[in-house]
Amino acid sequence: MSGARADRVERELRERELDALIVTQLVNVRWLTGFTGTNAVAVVAADGRRTFLTDFRYVERAEAEVAGFDRRRGGRDLLADAAEGLGRRVGFEDHHLPVRTWERLREAVADGVELVGAGRMLEDLRAVKEEEELVPIRAAAALADDVLREVVVEPGLVGRTERDVARAIERAMRERDAEPSFPPIVAAGANGAQPHAEPQDVEIPAGTLVVVDWGAQVGGYCSDCTRTFATGPIGDGAREVYELVERAQAAALEAVAPGADCREVDAAARGIIDAAGHGEHFGHGLGHGVGLEVHEEPRLTSVAEGALAPGHVVTVEPGVYLPGEVGVRIEDLVVVTEDGREALSGLPKSLTEL
Amino acid sequence: MSGARADRVERELRERELDALIVTQLVNVRWLTGFTGTNAVAVVAADGRRTFLTDFRYVERAEAEVAGFDRRRGGRDLLADAAEGLGRRVGFEDHHLPVRTWERLREAVADGVELVGAGRMLEDLRAVKEEEELVPIRAAAALADDVLREVVVEPGLVGRTERDVARAIERAMRERDAEPSFPPIVAAGANGAQPHAEPQDVEIPAGTLVVVDWGAQVGGYCSDCTRTFATGPIGDGAREVYELVERAQAAALEAVAPGADCREVDAAARGIIDAAGHGEHFGHGLGHGVGLEVHEEPRLTSVAEGALAPGHVVTVEPGVYLPGEVGVRIEDLVVVTEDGREALSGLPKSLTEL
Repeated sequence: MSGARADRVERELRERELDALIVTQLVNVRWLTGFTGTNAVAVVAADGRRTFLTDFRYVERAEAEVAGFDRRRGGRDLLADAAEGLGRRVGFEDHHLPVRTWERLREAVADGVELVGAGRMLEDLRAVKEEEELVPIRAAAALADDVLREVVVEPGLVGRTERDVARAIERAMRERDAEPSFPPIVAAGANGAQPHAEPQDVEIPAGTLVVVDWGAQVGGYCSDCTRTFATGPIGDGAREVYELVERAQAAALEAVAPGADCREVDAAARGIIDAAGHGEHFGHGLGHGVGLEVHEEPRLTSVAEGALAPGHVVTVEPGVYLPGEVGVRIEDLVVVTEDGREALSGLPKSLTEL
Repeated sequence: MSGARADRVERELRERELDALIVTQLVNVRWLTGFTGTNAVAVVAADGRRTFLTDFRYVERAEAEVAGFDRRRGGRDLLADAAEGLGRRVGFEDHHLPVRTWERLREAVADGVELVGAGRMLEDLRAVKEEEELVPIRAAAALADDVLREVVVEPGLVGRTERDVARAIERAMRERDAEPSFPPIVAAGANGAQPHAEPQDVEIPAGTLVVVDWGAQVGGYCSDCTRTFATGPIGDGAREVYELVERAQAAALEAVAPGADCREVDAAARGIIDAAGHGEHFGHGLGHGVGLEVHEEPRLTSVAEGALAPGHVVTVEPGVYLPGEVGVRIEDLVVVTEDGREALSGLPKSLTEL
């Protein structure tokens, strides 16, 4: 890391009148320091001190990965070691830190120190990507597109099982040196009516809709995309649902811009689906941020707060799910730019028969 | 699930004079209810009520997976929905629940309700495996052994990169319908001196030691094993370290029995390594429980509390790490039985030249 991220944290601390922030959420630690191991605590103090603690197992890795921090090998309780001499008002990640650990932390800090829940401070900072973070995100999205063309679009789906297709997607990513950013969803017919369906050991029939939701992880950064394919001609009802979701997705995509209210972007799709009488069949938010985690800030939902800003990377993924019948979801990954948006998903969205 | 696990929780609640336990840790939810999704809360009450809440996305999956619980579809805040009418003393998982979520929970429960940190109650119950849980653990260990024979022992290691070998292990597991229970470690020479080394893109040379730490996951249950191989003849120093660890591992294995103090099992290996002057080079605990998680209760360390009991499944994995030179670790997975132990790792432990 260049130290620029810790600088951003430091500015935020001064604004909140905090003397320091103890960072325990590992993805936040990675974002802040570059450390990829599984046990570490980082501290950023408003006076410029930056401390990184890990245990015996990761000392060598930390030497290779973590720059710009005073690296220390901690004992059995990294948090107690981290808690010393940080000032009066010390922030901690209350969305993440377990109650029991917080109780230990309270015992470890000096009398008179106030522990202040910092909420999702780092998650909000992380949400705004730097150009160097967009590079792996774009690469992950392009790789995911390539994989889908190779193992789904070209060979088709009829007669293969959902599980085999999901496996093939994972395998093709790994052959390209990427990991799946989550277990792919391949859900045909009524199974597609479950937004988070598990791929089943059943053959995909002709004449149905198949939801495929997949993503790759490259250099730690995730992509996320969904397409719904037809396995040959489908009925008018299913086609209407598809076209409804396609329209809603296009409208929401159009609404993505710097300054756009997150709730209104969600509403751009939801309004269209509501008007068609399917409001109750769109039971999740429109989208979410994507980065080191596949679900992160900002959220695009009907209760979201805040507005989009340049550097946000979000999914736009309305869906309509008719229990026992069929499901449709169409999802793009989008970067918010200075003057609009950059879509990272390249596969066509008009109904494709395989 | 048969309901027997919830019965065990209910008995524990009565012993602790708790009216209910709110289960939020997802692996504990899975153990208790069978649910494999990523958002759920389960409640076991001392009066026999058993409630399971998930959101819209997982309603169908819960119907298929969760029996013996009153299944409810929760709203945006599952925890608030779960918190109603549970009695006076309500346990929660304070090792897991974030401070912020706990604050919301406190607001959701009625006045006069006492929220009591239940510690690792379910982790401790989970540590004692039922016979039906040993079946997939044995299968995972056997599969992991097979994979290692096929992709490491038979083809050898010299000239392959650490990363390629790690990949091959993962691929061979997936071909057998299993997932790796963690990213395999393949660490040659000085890289082996990092207990949690990342496989590198460097060719493994002849005449060195290579630590291979890998495990499979079958039906949700994990295995964990380590062998250290020689790539041809090695120096006397490295051989001495190997034989020391081999002796320490055998002694600790012998100490595994029902009723054995966890600290003393650790000491059985640690004493031998200390006596050889390498105490400071064995910087981690002897072992840990393995089940739905690859690291779980009980812990076998120098500060562990408690004793082994029949049904515990633990690793026995002493190591000696000489920074910049070489590392050796030998690990078996072991079930504690009524009268001793059952080792699940079948590969030889005497120094094997590949």
